[in-house]
Amino acid sequence: MIRHTVVFKLKYPEGSHEEAVFLEAAMKLMAITGAQQFELLRQTSPKNDYDYGLSMEFQSSAAYQAYTEHSDHVNFVTTYWGVYVDKFLEIDYEPMSQIGRKARS
Amino acid sequence: MIRHTVVFKLKYPEGSHEEAVFLEAAMKLMAITGAQQFELLRQTSPKNDYDYGLSMEFQSSAAYQAYTEHSDHVNFVTTYWGVYVDKFLEIDYEPMSQIGRKARS
Repeated sequence: MIRHTVVFKLKYPEGSHEEAVFLEAAMKLMAITGAQQFELLRQTSPKNDYDYGLSMEFQSSAAYQAYTEHSDHVNFVTTYWGVYVDKFLEIDYEPMSQIGRKARS
Repeated sequence: MIRHTVVFKLKYPEGSHEEAVFLEAAMKLMAITGAQQFELLRQTSPKNDYDYGLSMEFQSSAAYQAYTEHSDHVNFVTTYWGVYVDKFLEIDYEPMSQIGRKARS
Protein backbone atom coordinates (compact mmCIF):
# COMPACT_ATOMS: atom_id res chain seq x y z
CA MET A 1 0.00 0.00 0.00
CA ILE A 2 1.19 3.48 -0.91
CA ARG A 3 -0.55 6.40 0.79
CA HIS A 4 -0.10 9.46 -1.39
CA THR A 5 -0.71 12.74 0.42
CA VAL A 6 -0.29 16.38 -0.42
CA VAL A 7 -0.68 19.25 2.02
CA PHE A 8 -1.36 22.61 0.42
CA LYS A 9 -2.35 26.24 0.67
CA LEU A 10 -4.54 28.06 -1.84
CA LYS A 11 -4.01 31.55 -3.25
CA TYR A 12 -7.62 32.30 -2.27
CA PRO A 13 -9.23 32.67 1.16
CA GLU A 14 -11.52 30.25 2.92
CA GLY A 15 -15.10 30.81 1.86
CA SER A 16 -14.14 32.30 -1.50
CA HIS A 17 -15.70 31.25 -4.80
CA GLU A 18 -12.27 30.15 -5.99
CA GLU A 19 -11.85 27.85 -2.98
CA ALA A 20 -15.20 26.21 -3.74
CA VAL A 21 -14.36 25.74 -7.42
CA PHE A 22 -10.96 24.24 -6.60
CA LEU A 23 -12.20 21.85 -3.91
CA GLU A 24 -15.05 20.64 -6.10
CA ALA A 25 -12.57 19.90 -8.89
CA ALA A 26 -10.21 18.15 -6.45
CA MET A 27 -13.00 15.90 -5.18
CA LYS A 28 -13.55 14.59 -8.71
CA LEU A 29 -10.10 12.99 -8.59
CA MET A 30 -11.60 10.28 -6.39
CA ALA A 31 -13.32 8.85 -9.48
CA ILE A 32 -9.99 7.88 -11.03
CA THR A 33 -9.51 4.12 -10.94
CA GLY A 34 -7.08 2.95 -8.28
CA ALA A 35 -7.36 5.95 -5.95
CA GLN A 36 -8.75 4.36 -2.78
CA GLN A 37 -9.57 5.83 0.64
CA PHE A 38 -9.72 9.24 -1.03
CA GLU A 39 -9.95 12.08 1.49
CA LEU A 40 -10.13 15.84 1.26
CA LEU A 41 -8.93 17.17 4.60
CA ARG A 42 -8.50 20.38 6.50
CA GLN A 43 -5.01 20.95 7.92
CA THR A 44 -5.45 22.18 11.49
CA SER A 45 -2.02 22.20 13.13
CA PRO A 46 -0.76 25.70 14.01
CA LYS A 47 2.78 24.39 13.49
CA ASN A 48 2.65 24.85 9.72
CA ASP A 49 0.80 27.23 7.39
CA TYR A 50 -0.92 24.78 5.07
CA ASP A 51 -4.73 24.72 5.06
CA TYR A 52 -5.81 21.55 3.24
CA GLY A 53 -4.75 18.02 2.46
CA LEU A 54 -5.52 15.27 0.00
CA SER A 55 -4.88 11.65 0.92
CA MET A 56 -5.42 8.51 -1.12
CA GLU A 57 -4.10 4.98 -1.20
CA PHE A 58 -2.85 2.82 -4.05
CA GLN A 59 -2.34 -0.91 -3.95
CA SER A 60 0.78 -0.79 -6.12
CA SER A 61 3.32 1.52 -7.72
CA ALA A 62 1.68 0.72 -11.06
CA ALA A 63 -1.72 1.92 -9.79
CA TYR A 64 -0.09 5.09 -8.45
CA GLN A 65 1.64 5.74 -11.75
CA ALA A 66 -1.56 5.10 -13.71
CA TYR A 67 -3.35 7.70 -11.53
CA THR A 68 -0.57 10.23 -12.03
CA GLU A 69 -0.70 9.75 -15.79
CA HIS A 70 -4.51 9.60 -16.05
CA SER A 71 -5.84 12.35 -18.32
CA ASP A 72 -8.27 13.57 -15.64
CA HIS A 73 -5.37 14.01 -13.22
CA VAL A 74 -3.15 15.65 -15.81
CA ASN A 75 -5.95 18.05 -16.74
CA PHE A 76 -6.64 18.83 -13.06
CA VAL A 77 -2.98 19.70 -12.49
CA THR A 78 -2.93 22.01 -15.51
CA THR A 79 -6.31 23.65 -15.05
CA TYR A 80 -6.60 23.87 -11.27
CA TRP A 81 -3.49 22.87 -9.29
CA GLY A 82 -1.07 25.08 -11.17
CA VAL A 83 -3.47 28.04 -11.06
CA TYR A 84 -5.06 27.91 -7.60
CA VAL A 85 -2.34 26.47 -5.33
CA ASP A 86 0.06 28.80 -3.54
CA LYS A 87 2.36 26.18 -1.97
CA PHE A 88 2.32 22.45 -1.32
CA LEU A 89 4.31 19.47 -0.11
CA GLU A 90 3.86 15.91 -1.34
CA ILE A 91 4.41 13.16 1.23
CA ASP A 92 4.03 9.46 0.43
CA TYR A 93 3.91 6.75 3.04
CA GLU A 94 4.29 3.00 3.02
CA PRO A 95 3.87 0.74 6.04
CA MET A 96 7.11 -0.12 7.80
CA SER A 97 7.26 -3.88 8.10
CA GLN A 98 9.44 -5.84 10.45
CA ILE A 99 10.02 -2.84 12.69
CA GLY A 100 10.03 -5.09 15.71
CA ARG A 101 12.52 -7.44 14.14
CA LYS A 102 14.83 -4.63 13.12
CA ALA A 103 14.57 -2.96 16.51
CA ARG A 104 15.59 -6.14 18.29
CA SER A 105 18.40 -7.18 15.98
CA MET B 1 -11.56 12.85 14.32
CA ILE B 2 -8.15 14.48 14.37
CA ARG B 3 -5.36 12.70 12.49
CA HIS B 4 -2.05 13.79 13.97
CA THR B 5 0.93 13.13 11.72
CA VAL B 6 4.60 14.00 11.82
CA VAL B 7 7.05 13.41 9.00
CA PHE B 8 10.69 13.32 10.06
CA LYS B 9 14.31 12.59 9.31
CA LEU B 10 16.77 11.06 11.79
CA LYS B 11 20.34 12.12 12.45
CA TYR B 12 21.32 8.46 11.94
CA PRO B 13 21.33 6.30 8.81
CA GLU B 14 18.91 3.53 7.91
CA GLY B 15 20.04 0.27 9.44
CA SER B 16 21.95 1.95 12.26
CA HIS B 17 21.65 0.92 15.90
CA GLU B 18 20.36 4.39 16.71
CA GLU B 19 17.57 4.08 14.13
CA ALA B 20 16.46 0.81 15.71
CA VAL B 21 16.52 2.25 19.22
CA PHE B 22 14.53 5.30 18.15
CA LEU B 23 11.89 3.41 16.17
CA GLU B 24 11.37 0.91 18.97
CA ALA B 25 10.83 3.79 21.41
CA ALA B 26 8.44 5.51 18.98
CA MET B 27 6.35 2.36 18.60
CA LYS B 28 5.70 2.35 22.36
CA LEU B 29 3.71 5.57 21.97
CA MET B 30 0.87 3.49 20.58
CA ALA B 31 0.17 2.24 24.10
CA ILE B 32 -0.91 5.71 25.22
CA THR B 33 -4.66 5.86 25.74
CA GLY B 34 -6.52 7.66 22.98
CA ALA B 35 -3.93 7.21 20.23
CA GLN B 36 -5.85 5.14 17.67
CA GLN B 37 -4.87 3.84 14.21
CA PHE B 38 -1.23 4.28 15.23
CA GLU B 39 1.16 3.83 12.31
CA LEU B 40 4.91 4.02 11.90
CA LEU B 41 5.53 4.70 8.21
CA ARG B 42 8.31 5.05 5.72
CA GLN B 43 8.24 8.24 3.68
CA THR B 44 8.91 7.28 0.07
CA SER B 45 8.28 10.34 -2.09
CA PRO B 46 11.42 11.69 -3.79
CA LYS B 47 9.83 15.16 -3.62
CA ASN B 48 10.91 15.75 -0.01
CA ASP B 49 13.85 14.56 2.09
CA TYR B 50 12.01 13.08 5.08
CA ASP B 51 12.37 9.35 5.73
CA TYR B 52 9.68 8.36 8.25
CA GLY B 53 6.25 9.26 9.47
CA LEU B 54 4.03 8.69 12.46
CA SER B 55 0.26 8.86 12.11
CA MET B 56 -2.42 8.44 14.76
CA GLU B 57 -6.02 9.46 15.25
CA PHE B 58 -7.82 11.01 18.20
CA GLN B 59 -11.55 11.20 18.68
CA SER B 60 -11.44 14.66 20.27
CA SER B 61 -9.19 17.60 20.99
CA ALA B 62 -9.24 16.55 24.64
CA ALA B 63 -7.89 13.09 23.76
CA TYR B 64 -5.18 14.70 21.60
CA GLN B 65 -4.20 17.05 24.41
CA ALA B 66 -4.14 14.21 26.94
CA TYR B 67 -1.77 12.28 24.65
CA THR B 68 0.50 15.31 24.22
CA GLU B 69 0.67 15.83 27.97
CA HIS B 70 0.98 12.13 28.88
CA SER B 71 4.19 11.45 30.81
CA ASP B 72 5.21 8.67 28.39
CA HIS B 73 4.92 11.13 25.47
CA VAL B 74 6.71 13.92 27.34
CA ASN B 75 9.53 11.53 28.27
CA PHE B 76 9.77 10.26 24.68
CA VAL B 77 10.12 13.80 23.36
CA THR B 78 12.86 14.62 25.87
CA THR B 79 14.78 11.34 25.68
CA TYR B 80 14.42 10.39 22.02
CA TRP B 81 12.77 12.99 19.78
CA GLY B 82 14.98 15.90 20.81
CA VAL B 83 18.11 13.77 20.56
CA TYR B 84 17.62 11.58 17.47
CA VAL B 85 15.53 13.71 15.09
CA ASP B 86 17.25 15.94 12.54
CA LYS B 87 14.16 17.70 11.12
CA PHE B 88 10.41 17.23 11.16
CA LEU B 89 7.05 18.71 10.22
CA GLU B 90 3.82 18.19 12.12
CA ILE B 91 0.64 18.04 10.03
CA ASP B 92 -2.81 17.50 11.55
CA TYR B 93 -5.88 16.69 9.52
CA GLU B 94 -9.60 16.75 10.17
CA PRO B 95 -12.25 15.60 7.70
CA MET B 96 -13.76 18.39 5.61
CA SER B 97 -17.50 18.14 5.99
CA GLN B 98 -20.07 19.61 3.66
CA ILE B 99 -17.53 20.06 0.89
CA GLY B 100 -20.20 19.36 -1.67
CA ARG B 101 -22.56 21.89 -0.13
CA LYS B 102 -19.88 24.56 0.01
CA ALA B 103 -18.84 23.89 -3.56
CA ARG B 104 -22.39 24.30 -4.80
CA SER B 105 -23.34 27.34 -2.73
